[in-house]
Amino acid sequence: MRIVVVGGVAAGMSAASRARRQNPAAEVVVFERGDWISYGACGLPYVIGGEVQERRTQGNHVPESTLQDVPDDEFGVLVARTPDQMRGQGVSVRLNHEVLGVDARAATLSVLDRSSGRTVQEPYDRLLLATGVAPVRPDWLPDTLQGVHVLRDIPDAQGIEATLRGGAKRAAIVGGGYIGLEMAEALKRRGLSVVMLEAGPEPAGRMLDPVNRRLVREELERQGIDLRTGVTLEGLSAKDGRVTGVQTSAGRVRADLVLVAVGVRPKVELAQAAGVRLGHTGAVRVNASQQTSVAGIYAAGDNCESLHRVSRRRVHIPLGLTANRMGRVAGVNMAGGEARFPGIVGTGIFRVFDLSVARTGLTQQEADSYGLKAVSADVKSSDHAGYYADARPIWVRLTAEQGSGRLLGAQILGHGDAVKRIDVIAALLHSRASVHDLEDMDLAYAPPFSSVWDVLLVAAGKVKKVMREG
Amino acid sequence: MRIVVVGGVAAGMSAASRARRQNPAAEVVVFERGDWISYGACGLPYVIGGEVQERRTQGNHVPESTLQDVPDDEFGVLVARTPDQMRGQGVSVRLNHEVLGVDARAATLSVLDRSSGRTVQEPYDRLLLATGVAPVRPDWLPDTLQGVHVLRDIPDAQGIEATLRGGAKRAAIVGGGYIGLEMAEALKRRGLSVVMLEAGPEPAGRMLDPVNRRLVREELERQGIDLRTGVTLEGLSAKDGRVTGVQTSAGRVRADLVLVAVGVRPKVELAQAAGVRLGHTGAVRVNASQQTSVAGIYAAGDNCESLHRVSRRRVHIPLGLTANRMGRVAGVNMAGGEARFPGIVGTGIFRVFDLSVARTGLTQQEADSYGLKAVSADVKSSDHAGYYADARPIWVRLTAEQGSGRLLGAQILGHGDAVKRIDVIAALLHSRASVHDLEDMDLAYAPPFSSVWDVLLVAAGKVKKVMREG
Repeated sequence: MRIVVVGGVAAGMSAASRARRQNPAAEVVVFERGDWISYGACGLPYVIGGEVQERRTQGNHVPESTLQDVPDDEFGVLVARTPDQMRGQGVSVRLNHEVLGVDARAATLSVLDRSSGRTVQEPYDRLLLATGVAPVRPDWLPDTLQGVHVLRDIPDAQGIEATLRGGAKRAAIVGGGYIGLEMAEALKRRGLSVVMLEAGPEPAGRMLDPVNRRLVREELERQGIDLRTGVTLEGLSAKDGRVTGVQTSAGRVRADLVLVAVGVRPKVELAQAAGVRLGHTGAVRVNASQQTSVAGIYAAGDNCESLHRVSRRRVHIPLGLTANRMGRVAGVNMAGGEARFPGIVGTGIFRVFDLSVARTGLTQQEADSYGLKAVSADVKSSDHAGYYADARPIWVRLTAEQGSGRLLGAQILGHGDAVKRIDVIAALLHSRASVHDLEDMDLAYAPPFSSVWDVLLVAAGKVKKVMREG
Repeated sequence: MRIVVVGGVAAGMSAASRARRQNPAAEVVVFERGDWISYGACGLPYVIGGEVQERRTQGNHVPESTLQDVPDDEFGVLVARTPDQMRGQGVSVRLNHEVLGVDARAATLSVLDRSSGRTVQEPYDRLLLATGVAPVRPDWLPDTLQGVHVLRDIPDAQGIEATLRGGAKRAAIVGGGYIGLEMAEALKRRGLSVVMLEAGPEPAGRMLDPVNRRLVREELERQGIDLRTGVTLEGLSAKDGRVTGVQTSAGRVRADLVLVAVGVRPKVELAQAAGVRLGHTGAVRVNASQQTSVAGIYAAGDNCESLHRVSRRRVHIPLGLTANRMGRVAGVNMAGGEARFPGIVGTGIFRVFDLSVARTGLTQQEADSYGLKAVSADVKSSDHAGYYADARPIWVRLTAEQGSGRLLGAQILGHGDAVKRIDVIAALLHSRASVHDLEDMDLAYAPPFSSVWDVLLVAAGKVKKVMREG
């Protein structure tokens, strides 16, 4: 059996690895358009910001002996498995191979070898589309202007690094989502002045309810980020092939580094060529086995929809764990095993300077938009016992279904690992538990770790009160 | 209706406060033997170690205006509600009132007013026994020798503080449980040399499986604690009324501060006088309404058993959250409402120097002792992405029922708040979830917070592997 994977990052490599383990007799081939496979793209802002361990130090997951075939580059630290390691597992990895087309009837791909320039036909028995997402770019954005960047993959990050080493002093970040926020911090750490342009009224708009977006705004302002909201990008100015500023709906901003981070779109060109059905989100629609609508063709990762276990809707929320998990499921199934993707509950987390932000499930706004009768309660408390020396504030917003009290979601903002409490709520969403269940739980207490009544328990009690009051 | 509460700390004050809120017409009286009510006894080691915020600073939960009737003492920081505040809520608090006896038939108490020396009879309609625990002391241990201490309440802590201010240089801690470990750190912070004597083969013996006890031992040794295991206390030496050393099964140890922390026993004298049934643990047996076997008499807090939701057995695990929760339940029920104590899952957490330690459910050893067919898997990983600058090791042991995969317990050791992940497992134990459920969960990932596959997910996968191989 010949299993072919298109795309060698999170979902693709997880799938290849699992497929081979499931069926050691299968031939497993991965076509990757670029030079890099199996890297943690989520780590790019931290490498740029200088927050990574030295390569080859303890705690670095890349064993020294396997680094020989990783390009000598600071981003190599993000590589989890090298082509040689994959070959050692029996997976054939073809770098610089771009899949140009699919013939689903003939079960063949046309593949361009970018180093030789030749295109060949490659057969498959099972095909996985793990093509990921591409950053959204305005149509008019020039491809070649120096200093204008998006951030999705290692070459993007290398481009940003080159602009930084070229002496960039002023950054304009367009978009206040995860990447915009993480890069605001990274660029500030690199000594740049940073202007952030956000089209909406607050940053982090799609992740949080308004009450919590304000905390993100305050943190940005406290850290000296020049945040301009309700402002859109209208054009660029340049001189000698280098960007010199951005034209916005509220005037001109000088900048020698422009990062456009206004969202991503699923890369579905191959899927469409194969006749694969897309969902209402525009991403590939898959079933729980990661099968597409075309026999023999699977899809996994950021290019796919997933089932949201709370809203029971199909959503497109591209994230690293989801992609890896989908890849494993697809790999097992393509190789003849049985695995099911369990769906997601919409968990996300990021850090921006000293503020950690986590969410899971639905925000109040999302629940409202789905027509759910939801109530929310907000609690501000201490992450540790109030009298304990390093107690810091923590904000919890808990959202539940009016009446039943079924948990619908949570947002937690605070410091450091304290917001990892979000996983408790994520687990309860999987179990379809209620605020009544939560309030009864035997959570861990000692003064360095929480108040006697952990803030989650307090929040559960407060939601019950809000429900009673109507 | 007259509701009388014996004991004014966690369970007692929670009950009094809830009872009054449930039934504002009820008379609620609290008899407290000592000078202090409503304080966080769990914080005592941190006050002694100097790890508390200054009184009256931000983050201190005691508002300035209410501190007037708290004795002027560094331990005042632990007081959550003062007698005046309780009186403001309609709860009558009688300090220095010791309840000497109960006549359940007549529904009266005999109460000694320790300031006047008079004993009076006090009637009740509902009685709550919230008498807590007393430290276990060897029979021969003298009461009056200076420098010999237990640590349970504020007067005990004041005694230790006095010994420290008297110039103590060498501490001997007898017992390697929570209190012994927390105090080893506190006394080291105060500049003392510390010898710890533990009768068992490792510290933290009742909380962890052997593989994890070794990590506690290593941390103690790394921090310069002189740990001697398999050693019991046999006697004391003294000079001029002050302790000068301890005689152990392995020779003499010089010490001018001796802390005996070899466990606690439930204070059940009043319960026995009232004819209340005790459980097989020696603590008061209560039902889910916190009622004892005698009509009209309730019990709550450290003197009670609680139902362990995993083992379905009655256990005696005295902890702060449990006590507060039992108190609330008792308070509501005594005042005519309806509330049920949900049971516990055996969650505990402590910090000893740089090592944070958490557990929930059953250890493998506990599961074995109950005749459960259990398997465990150990994972050592990073608390954050391996390449991220502050990634530190984390150890997870997950225990599940062979076959079904039902989660039975977890132990997590690591740094800082990373071990608060234990609450995810605690929540899943409440839901009777399995390792299969856990492995499917959408937990939060970004490099500053976890690996793509959070260590809990990795551990779930490893348990499944052990089950298959087992």
